[in-house]
Amino acid sequence: MGKIHKKQISFELIKAQRALQSYEGTSQGRSLLILVSGVAFSEKVTAVKQLRTLLDPHGLSIVANQVKHLNADVPFWQQYVEKIPQEGEIVVLLGHWYDQLLASSVHDQMKPSEFQQALQHMLDFETYLKNQRVDVMHFWFDVSWSQLKKRSLAIDPLALEIQQHYGVDWLSKKQYQKAQQLRQLFTQNWIHVTADDPAPALSFAQHILYTCQHSGLPQHHTSHFESVAVSPRLNVTQQAPLDREQYEQTRLKLTEQFSTLLKQQQRRVVLVFEGMDAAGKGGAIERVIEGLDPLEYGIHSVAAPKKHELQRPYLWRFWRNLNQKKLTIFDRSWYGRVLVERVEQITPVALWQKGYEEINQFEQDLVQHNTLVVKFWLAIDIKEQGKRFKSRASTPSKQFKITAEDWRNREKWTDYLQAASDMLAYTDHTHAPWYVIATNDKRRARLEVLRALIEQMTTTAEEL
Amino acid sequence: MGKIHKKQISFELIKAQRALQSYEGTSQGRSLLILVSGVAFSEKVTAVKQLRTLLDPHGLSIVANQVKHLNADVPFWQQYVEKIPQEGEIVVLLGHWYDQLLASSVHDQMKPSEFQQALQHMLDFETYLKNQRVDVMHFWFDVSWSQLKKRSLAIDPLALEIQQHYGVDWLSKKQYQKAQQLRQLFTQNWIHVTADDPAPALSFAQHILYTCQHSGLPQHHTSHFESVAVSPRLNVTQQAPLDREQYEQTRLKLTEQFSTLLKQQQRRVVLVFEGMDAAGKGGAIERVIEGLDPLEYGIHSVAAPKKHELQRPYLWRFWRNLNQKKLTIFDRSWYGRVLVERVEQITPVALWQKGYEEINQFEQDLVQHNTLVVKFWLAIDIKEQGKRFKSRASTPSKQFKITAEDWRNREKWTDYLQAASDMLAYTDHTHAPWYVIATNDKRRARLEVLRALIEQMTTTAEEL
Repeated sequence: MGKIHKKQISFELIKAQRALQSYEGTSQGRSLLILVSGVAFSEKVTAVKQLRTLLDPHGLSIVANQVKHLNADVPFWQQYVEKIPQEGEIVVLLGHWYDQLLASSVHDQMKPSEFQQALQHMLDFETYLKNQRVDVMHFWFDVSWSQLKKRSLAIDPLALEIQQHYGVDWLSKKQYQKAQQLRQLFTQNWIHVTADDPAPALSFAQHILYTCQHSGLPQHHTSHFESVAVSPRLNVTQQAPLDREQYEQTRLKLTEQFSTLLKQQQRRVVLVFEGMDAAGKGGAIERVIEGLDPLEYGIHSVAAPKKHELQRPYLWRFWRNLNQKKLTIFDRSWYGRVLVERVEQITPVALWQKGYEEINQFEQDLVQHNTLVVKFWLAIDIKEQGKRFKSRASTPSKQFKITAEDWRNREKWTDYLQAASDMLAYTDHTHAPWYVIATNDKRRARLEVLRALIEQMTTTAEEL
Repeated sequence: MGKIHKKQISFELIKAQRALQSYEGTSQGRSLLILVSGVAFSEKVTAVKQLRTLLDPHGLSIVANQVKHLNADVPFWQQYVEKIPQEGEIVVLLGHWYDQLLASSVHDQMKPSEFQQALQHMLDFETYLKNQRVDVMHFWFDVSWSQLKKRSLAIDPLALEIQQHYGVDWLSKKQYQKAQQLRQLFTQNWIHVTADDPAPALSFAQHILYTCQHSGLPQHHTSHFESVAVSPRLNVTQQAPLDREQYEQTRLKLTEQFSTLLKQQQRRVVLVFEGMDAAGKGGAIERVIEGLDPLEYGIHSVAAPKKHELQRPYLWRFWRNLNQKKLTIFDRSWYGRVLVERVEQITPVALWQKGYEEINQFEQDLVQHNTLVVKFWLAIDIKEQGKRFKSRASTPSKQFKITAEDWRNREKWTDYLQAASDMLAYTDHTHAPWYVIATNDKRRARLEVLRALIEQMTTTAEEL
């Protein structure tokens, strides 16, 4: 009986897996992330191992991670970025953020408010994943204290040692009790598999099957979105050109000052550069790094996402490039979601509208983890852009910078201004401010960027 | 004059970059890796920064790495895997394996023989890259001791500190002299840029341009390859089935023994499973991990490479999955190069022929870095395969395991036997042995795999 039942589940699971894979690369594309936690010597390992025999192992990843305490310096999701499943994939994580939360709170005496804040980050992150078509399941495998003691007698001491790497020493009664009490704060809505279950590994598989068969795509509804009036900050006028000598002296002073601040401070800095084509993003970035060694910074020039990046949550390709260096610079960024993807109608309305909130949450996450976020909109007027386009077109070494697409974008100038205005209205915060920099005169603009940066580094406090 | 010259180089460089990108995804697809080293306060940083302004920054990555000493436990290339450029890309590395070699030898008193061996690994690795259409350039930026002392006076102490992260304290005369002497052992054929160069950053760019314009694709010639006679080890006969009770008792004993050995030993273990379809690879792997916690192992089910993987060196996708766990299991592996890619004529003859040597070198690299490599060919006879195919086809939960392709492969049985025989002849070494396991009886086969594994773990010494 058990065997036939198992074969039946396997058959259905593989069918569900094939369905999942068949949507890969389409707007229905989705994936499944399964978070498995529980008491040591529960059936979780058996269940996970059996799952591998019930599914087609291609397209299934089972990843166990050593559980480290939560780190106030880095968002918890950073270490899991490469493990977030791609469309069509199923990923099972043993040892994940909830285990980190449990380990940290069992050992560290986290304050209830810290615990709640960390938990909220996790819930928000998962909401984002779900909205981005990564379904998330949670399992808690439970064993009572007396059952646990009994089971542990049969275990090799070397195997006992490995269990410690999941973050809690379940064989210490004190830790057992504390962990059981704390995990109640987040496992209410999880799927529970207990030692009384006659076939825990099969229950596990059945729940996964049920989710595969019944979960629908996330629904996104257009909200009552109000476009703001075009921001007057975006209307720039011609500027008197700055004298070269004065520019070079000031620039040298500012780049040195920024370089020193960056070295003195412990926090990381993330800079975003956005703006119309030919607004001078590249030149401004060049001056930001002028006084720095490449060990101190990374620059990411963002183009349209590649195929495999489209099969991940929207922010995924940015997550990957964060927290590697003291300073991370994005030449175009995640704001593409509410700029080019909105104007060119690449992304459904409901989704780019949701983008503001998602971006705000993402940046807040960075800021709360020892990072300064500063964003620059480089503003030129349409005449100046025309001049620069023509100059690019007639300079052989700059022709690559000007394409038919740029001229087409130019025709949508007012749409882009509207999108930029809404972006400024909805994503400008004290903790992650936008600076609108007039760049009709490039020299003035470059100095303004440096000044703004220094202002942010000196007037905002480091959280340590 | 200087400015016009720079624009001209930029124009040509971008043209070359476009050409590089235009071949992406074709058999002409290639990439360029630029390794930059040199004395501190040379022009290397300026040169690298300027390169960014001369090229289109999309498709260019400049990556600076903190230089750590070479680690006897992990092949040097492991930490650089994600930085090996994809087709169409140019990657510049500041802080790379030669800097590690220099740092290790300046500080560690490496024996000349150790130095030579480490250097040889690097040269071999680069030969592999070049054969796989990753062109590699080397630059040494030099500064004399007196020039260096003069330059260092003008430098901010915080910036001095950062220079230390490149591995050598160039301002210590002793280290300067030692490093200069040691680097002579590998920089003879590098491109040298000295402080006397009137425009070092432009020289740097010009050399890159020259390489882009003049380097051809690697030439691969079919060698005098001799196929061996089909190995008699591959001809298996029916086996008497093993009694279930006896099987389960023995299996339990062996899995426990293997589990204990794995925990006791410090080295990592890499297992390769190859064999005809339906030979029982999955079932054998299931028993290998039976006594282990998922923290101890990772299993990689290898399918045809994805598009972005095809744009990297052949071994790249395997490199990525190594050295994460104590035990790494490949269900199919890099031997696809000389099996399916040969038989199905996916890869040109000259390339799969080269594969044997490349694989041998790769495995030797693992073995020399504290890793045990054991390979299994699971052998069934053609009748038994037919029986299993039919059973799969008639079992709903196993139908996914049997496709039209499997039946087609079966028609090429003798071709696969020939490929397997050559593989055994050319890649079976004491340090990375093949075990041919007869699997007509699955139970016997699973026990044989465990026994072979235990034999290897107990009879070969750990290098520590």
